[in-house]
Amino acid sequence: MRDNWQYLFTPGSVAVIGASNAPGSWGCSIMRSLLISTERKVYPVNNRLSEVWGLAAYGSVLDIPGSVDLAVIAVPALQVPTVLRECVQKEVKAAAIVSGGFAETDKQGRKLETELTKIAQQGGICFIGPNSMGYADTSSRLFALTWVGEITPGPVAFISQSGNIIHWIISKGKSSGIGFSKLISTGNEADLHLEDYLEYLAQDENTQIIAAYIEGLREGRRFFELAKETTIRKPVIVVKAGRTKGSAKAVKSHTGALAGSEVAYAAAFKQSGVIRVDDDDELCDIVFALINHPLPRGNRVGILTSGGGLGVMATDICEWEGLNIAPLAASTIEKLNTYLPPRWSHGNPVDTTGMSLEEIPILSSSLQVLLEDKNIDAVLLQTVVGLDASLLNLRGPEEVKAFKEAEAKGLSKIKQWIKEYDKPVFVVPTLASPSATFALRKEGFLAYPNPRRAAKVIHRLGEYRKILETAKLAT
Amino acid sequence: MRDNWQYLFTPGSVAVIGASNAPGSWGCSIMRSLLISTERKVYPVNNRLSEVWGLAAYGSVLDIPGSVDLAVIAVPALQVPTVLRECVQKEVKAAAIVSGGFAETDKQGRKLETELTKIAQQGGICFIGPNSMGYADTSSRLFALTWVGEITPGPVAFISQSGNIIHWIISKGKSSGIGFSKLISTGNEADLHLEDYLEYLAQDENTQIIAAYIEGLREGRRFFELAKETTIRKPVIVVKAGRTKGSAKAVKSHTGALAGSEVAYAAAFKQSGVIRVDDDDELCDIVFALINHPLPRGNRVGILTSGGGLGVMATDICEWEGLNIAPLAASTIEKLNTYLPPRWSHGNPVDTTGMSLEEIPILSSSLQVLLEDKNIDAVLLQTVVGLDASLLNLRGPEEVKAFKEAEAKGLSKIKQWIKEYDKPVFVVPTLASPSATFALRKEGFLAYPNPRRAAKVIHRLGEYRKILETAKLAT
Repeated sequence: MRDNWQYLFTPGSVAVIGASNAPGSWGCSIMRSLLISTERKVYPVNNRLSEVWGLAAYGSVLDIPGSVDLAVIAVPALQVPTVLRECVQKEVKAAAIVSGGFAETDKQGRKLETELTKIAQQGGICFIGPNSMGYADTSSRLFALTWVGEITPGPVAFISQSGNIIHWIISKGKSSGIGFSKLISTGNEADLHLEDYLEYLAQDENTQIIAAYIEGLREGRRFFELAKETTIRKPVIVVKAGRTKGSAKAVKSHTGALAGSEVAYAAAFKQSGVIRVDDDDELCDIVFALINHPLPRGNRVGILTSGGGLGVMATDICEWEGLNIAPLAASTIEKLNTYLPPRWSHGNPVDTTGMSLEEIPILSSSLQVLLEDKNIDAVLLQTVVGLDASLLNLRGPEEVKAFKEAEAKGLSKIKQWIKEYDKPVFVVPTLASPSATFALRKEGFLAYPNPRRAAKVIHRLGEYRKILETAKLAT
Repeated sequence: MRDNWQYLFTPGSVAVIGASNAPGSWGCSIMRSLLISTERKVYPVNNRLSEVWGLAAYGSVLDIPGSVDLAVIAVPALQVPTVLRECVQKEVKAAAIVSGGFAETDKQGRKLETELTKIAQQGGICFIGPNSMGYADTSSRLFALTWVGEITPGPVAFISQSGNIIHWIISKGKSSGIGFSKLISTGNEADLHLEDYLEYLAQDENTQIIAAYIEGLREGRRFFELAKETTIRKPVIVVKAGRTKGSAKAVKSHTGALAGSEVAYAAAFKQSGVIRVDDDDELCDIVFALINHPLPRGNRVGILTSGGGLGVMATDICEWEGLNIAPLAASTIEKLNTYLPPRWSHGNPVDTTGMSLEEIPILSSSLQVLLEDKNIDAVLLQTVVGLDASLLNLRGPEEVKAFKEAEAKGLSKIKQWIKEYDKPVFVVPTLASPSATFALRKEGFLAYPNPRRAAKVIHRLGEYRKILETAKLAT
C-alpha cells in the first residue's frame, strides 16, 4: 500500500469527506485549497448539506458516481472508522486524515487510531495522518492543505510533524523567495511515517532540497540510513525539537511522540550528513542559501564593510560562530591599495572607511578582489543597500536617480562575480529598513538581517561541503 | 574643562569649521543636520567658499562677528591644530572634532593627537573626538552629527566608540519605536572619555536608559565604579566587541583602542549590574523592552500559543536560553478548562489548538488567566497578529472587517492587562509579514520576530531585576 504514492500526489479525483462552507473549519479551508486547481474532479461529501463551495455535495463517498483515487477526511474522530470503511468499499487508493482526537489525546484515541490503521491496511489504502493538516504537491497542483493562500512552486520539500509549522514555513518562505515542491503535515503517522516520505522525496525529481521539522522519529535507524544515502545527493535540513525537558514533555502532549535522547540524535544527525538547525528562521536561512548559490569551500571569510565598528562587530560574531577571518593574500592588499583610500584597514575585515556617493564602484571592485583571493571561501558584504535616499545627503532628484542607478549596477556586478568566481557572497544591508533583506532575497541575493544569521549559514554550509567532499573521496 | 557640558549640549552658537556644500562630505552633512534647528546661530567656516547652505561663510572662526560656544571641526588632520588654536583665541568653550587621521592611523597621527589635547587643555576647551562622527541632543535640538535623517526624541542615550554604529542604531531605533535623548560618537577620546559621558548621562534628567557600544575602555576601573552606582537607578546596556582574536585586532585598526581581556570584562560587567548583550539587535531588543514595560519578576515563563509545534519550538528555545517553563497552578488549569476546547494541552505551553475566527476572545481570556498565575513572571504570546486577511478563509469584506475589529479589541485588552497585572507580555507574531513585528512595536507591544529574541530579553531582564532587588535589600 505504501506504493500508492501516485494516488496521493497525482490523483485523478478527490473526495473531501466533511467538506464544509463554514469559514474557520478545516473542511472549508481544504475545499477552497483543492479548488485552486481545476485539473481534477473534486467531490464534496457532507450528509447535511446539498451544496459545498458551489458543488453538489454527496451524503457518502459511496454516492459519488465516478471513481475516487484520494479521500481527504475531516469529520469528527468517532466517525472516521465508518468513513474509512466506505472508502475501502469505494476502492479509494489513498487518504489524508485531517481529523484529530486519536493517539495524541488518550487511551481511547490510541485505540481508535489502531482501528484506522487496520481498516486501511486490510483495505489497501495508504494514508497521511490522522491529526494532519494535509499536504500539497505544487507540480501536480494538488493542494489538500488547510492553508488557503498561494504556495510558490520550487525545489524544496518540507515534511513536518506539526501542521501549523507548515503554515509558518510557507509564510516565511514567501517573504524569502523559497518555493516548494511538496509540503506534508505528517500528523500522528499511524500509517505513513516520516521515513516513508523521506525515502520517496529522495527519489522525487521535483525535489532538490529536503527540509523537515521533527519532534520524534518512529523509525530512527531507518531515518538515519536513508539520510546517509540521501544527503550526498540532496541536502537534508532538520529542526529537531524536544531537546529540553519541558519541550520533550510538550512534544508528548502535542503529537504523542517520544522526543528521544538529544545526545543520540545530535550524533546521528552529524554522522548522516544532516544539516541540523536550531529553529525555523535558520531553516529558511540555510534553504535559501542552498537554492541558488555555490557552497562555500570552507569557513574562511572575507568581510567587506563600509564602517569600522560594523566590521569589528561582524568579525566578533563570525569568529564566535566558528568562522575563520582569513588573512588576506599580499596581492589582495596590493590591489586594494589601488582602490581604497590610504586609511583603509589593510587587513580583514576590509573597512573601506566612510560612506559616500563614490563608494559603490569602489565597493564592487573591492569585492572582486576579495573573491579572487584563494584564502577566502565566502565574502560577507556589510553595506548600505536599499537605503532610503533621504538619508544620503543628496540634493535633487537627479542625484537620487544617479545613486539608484549606480546601486543597481553594483548589485548586478555582484551577481556576475558570484557566478564567475563560484563563491557565495552574503549581503547584510545596513541603514536599511527591515524589509530590505527580503527585497534583496527576492532579487536572488543571499541577504541576511544581521551578521550572526549569515555566519551561522556559512558555518553550516562549509561543514556540509566537507561531508560531500569526503563522500566523493570514498567512492 | 570637563564641566563645559552646557556648551557642548546647549550652545548658543556653533561654528562648523570645514563646512561644505559637497554632498557626501561630512562638512556638508553636519551643516545640514545643524540647520534642522533654528534655535541657535550656525556659522559656516570655509576659506574657499563665500556661501555654504545659503549662509555667508567665514574664512576663519576669528572672522565671526559674535561669540562662538561650540566648534564642529571637519578639516584635514594636519589643519586641525591651527584651527583649534584659533578656537582658543576666539574663546570657544567646546568642540567636536570629526576629522580623522590621528591615533587610529600611525605614530605621526598619535603625535598630532597629543598636540590637539595640549592645545585644548591649555586653552580651556573640552572636546569630543577626534575621529568622531559627531553627536546630538534631542532636547536642545542640537544635531551636530553626520546623520542627515530625523532622530526621534526619547529616553535613551547612546554612547558609541564607532560612528557608523550610531547611524545604524538611529536607523534600527526608528523602525522599533526607540527614541533618543543623546547620541555621542566618542571617536578617539583624546579629551573626553566614554567614562565622562557615562558620568554625565547618569545625572542627565532627559536620559532614563544608557546604552553603549564599546571596543575598549580607557579608564576601566572608573567605568565599572560609575556603572555600579548608575545601574541601580538607570539600566546600562552594553555591546562590547573585541571578544575574539580577530575582532580585537580589528578594534586596534579601527580606533586604536585595546580590546582588553574578555574574561575580565565579562566578570566586571556582571558585578556592576551592566546588561551585556551580544550585538546591536539584542541591544535594541532590550532597550525597547525597558522603555515602556514592567520588568519580569523572574525567569518563569508562560507560553500561550495557537499551534502545537510552534509551542514545542518556543519551549525548546526558552529553556535553551535559560528560562523556566513554569508548571501552571491548579486554579489556572481549571479556569483554562472553561475557555479552551477539551483537547488543549492542559499544561505549559498552553496550546489553544487550532486557529479560527472565534479564537481571538479565547486567546485574550487565556492570557488574562496566565497573567493571574503567581507561578508566571512573563508571558510569551505566540499568535496570529497582523495577518493578511486573504489567508483567513474569510468570505466578503464584512467578515474581514469583523476579524480586524476583534483583533484590535484583543490587542487593546492585552495592553490593559499588562498594566493591571504589572507583568510583561512578549508577542511573537506568526504567519505575519516580516514588518508585523515593527508595526506592533510602534503600537507599544513588546513584539519580537521569533521566540529566541524574546527569550534572550526575558532572561536578561530577569537577571537585571534580581540586581535591583539585591541593591534595594542592601540599602
